[in-house]
Amino acid sequence: MKKLINDPEGVLNDALVGFAAANPDLIVNLEDRYISRGPTAGKVSLVSGGGSGHEPLHGGFVGYGMLDAACPGEVFTSPVPDQMLAATKAVDGGAGVLHVVKNYTGDVLNFQMAAELAGDDGLQVESVLVNDDVAVENSTYTAGRRGTGGTVFVEKMAGAAAERGADLAAVAAVGREVNDRSRSFGVALTANVIPATGKPGFELGDTEIELGVGIHGEPGRTRGQMSTAREIAGVALDAIHTDMPLSGDVLVMVNGLGGTPLIELYVVYAAVAEWLEGHGATITRNLVGNYITSLEMAGCSITVARMTPDLTELWDAPVQTPALRWGR
Amino acid sequence: MKKLINDPEGVLNDALVGFAAANPDLIVNLEDRYISRGPTAGKVSLVSGGGSGHEPLHGGFVGYGMLDAACPGEVFTSPVPDQMLAATKAVDGGAGVLHVVKNYTGDVLNFQMAAELAGDDGLQVESVLVNDDVAVENSTYTAGRRGTGGTVFVEKMAGAAAERGADLAAVAAVGREVNDRSRSFGVALTANVIPATGKPGFELGDTEIELGVGIHGEPGRTRGQMSTAREIAGVALDAIHTDMPLSGDVLVMVNGLGGTPLIELYVVYAAVAEWLEGHGATITRNLVGNYITSLEMAGCSITVARMTPDLTELWDAPVQTPALRWGR
Repeated sequence: MKKLINDPEGVLNDALVGFAAANPDLIVNLEDRYISRGPTAGKVSLVSGGGSGHEPLHGGFVGYGMLDAACPGEVFTSPVPDQMLAATKAVDGGAGVLHVVKNYTGDVLNFQMAAELAGDDGLQVESVLVNDDVAVENSTYTAGRRGTGGTVFVEKMAGAAAERGADLAAVAAVGREVNDRSRSFGVALTANVIPATGKPGFELGDTEIELGVGIHGEPGRTRGQMSTAREIAGVALDAIHTDMPLSGDVLVMVNGLGGTPLIELYVVYAAVAEWLEGHGATITRNLVGNYITSLEMAGCSITVARMTPDLTELWDAPVQTPALRWGR
Repeated sequence: MKKLINDPEGVLNDALVGFAAANPDLIVNLEDRYISRGPTAGKVSLVSGGGSGHEPLHGGFVGYGMLDAACPGEVFTSPVPDQMLAATKAVDGGAGVLHVVKNYTGDVLNFQMAAELAGDDGLQVESVLVNDDVAVENSTYTAGRRGTGGTVFVEKMAGAAAERGADLAAVAAVGREVNDRSRSFGVALTANVIPATGKPGFELGDTEIELGVGIHGEPGRTRGQMSTAREIAGVALDAIHTDMPLSGDVLVMVNGLGGTPLIELYVVYAAVAEWLEGHGATITRNLVGNYITSLEMAGCSITVARMTPDLTELWDAPVQTPALRWGR
């Protein structure tokens, strides 16, 4: 497998060096392994993190209006508590820190330990668990539901609330509300390849797709036959709708998993818009592109959040990060 | 080959329907096949276009501070003069229209014909030919050099000049200056697959790469063996530096060709920054991501522009488009 890397073991470090060079306004701590924008006095800070390979998540979302710090683990591997603790301390502005944690066992345990250690040091820490993936209960790395695309929504809207001066409890409440209102479903057309192994993480036949795949390539609900974008969008939206009936104003993300051309994501978005219109929901905001990826996996995930006017205001609030730099 | 489409023949139409749904502030004319933001009275308008499959180029760059219209052809196929003429008329605000044309034979001939037809109708049209790719002279679809990543730079900076009120000659002069100062070199790790054929556009062995590949998968300079990101960046920058010595302030884009994970693009960016620093050039602005793609091709292109203070001001000017929404 060919990859644009120098050394399979050094991918994360090399990428962080590149990220630092490309984003001189951010602090990249190579030793403690976190990306931050430093503390903002009096503001609640948001810290997230997780295995690498999902870029731009999370480092690409550090900046005004979103995260204060991100802790990248090795590819598909949870960051360690020390990293999270260092990041938490580095960005605390005196108003407390919210950990945004995707529901994977390693991430959950490590963030919990980091929160306890930070608490021992007198910091106020709350956490929001993101578990928006309706595909499966329990999976390779997860007890309960996995956290996927909803993470982008949680980070954006909780980040906006923090920027406005909400206190820690209120910022955490926004994060939990966004998670409660968000649902995702992913589909893989091809497998990804972890640099350290150089081999596909799973096998898919020439006409097979994985319906409900996780962002590491974890198994989904079923192995299906390749069909049309319209049918695939229908399967995803049916699964979401069964879990959380869709109506009213919705925010939709059609997210590429890393190896799918943007032109195809727009074909999917057309199908998603058609389906939602047919079911009486109104898309009021959207994202189409690569926001939470799985290395070079071909495929997409669809995330829908049921919006309120308050959440829409938070979505529209200014944001200035490497990956999201606008207000809607 | 699996693709998220409904019908290989309907990809462009379906994608435009999705693009229209996702971007309600833009006008998507499905019959005449152009994307526009309408005319702005008294402002020079910029129209570009080319074969589809390179998204977000060009439609993703329509909006404030950049293009006024884009004409998408079928995948890897030039748009037709009627499209270009309709788009040119649709956005003319009375101050003339600049065509930004990548140097591919079909695009050049068709834009030339559209400009003549627009002239017959009393419109003032100028054009800028983008030919920044140093890899080869003449190629499958091109006499002379191909137009690649430099197109993004031309559209951004000429677009900013137009937004500031520069007249047609001045906007065209900015576009030509940016092209003159920009050079690109691309590398393919895998081939792309045109939806209508469903087959790879070329064959690459398991350890082979194409050095100097074109954005449609046209042959480059040589077929090489896979090596490190650092060595590949060196080959690309050596080729650029030989053609246009690099020093002073530069704008750099490390562009994904569609199938390469963002984490790898940052690894490449680290190597590019190291190389440029070693050669006495200073990166003052950068882009890292997918801006001019080749469907799902794995690989990247590197574009460098030698900047002036005036051009940096134009680069930093506000922009609000689906794909570029910030000032730097």
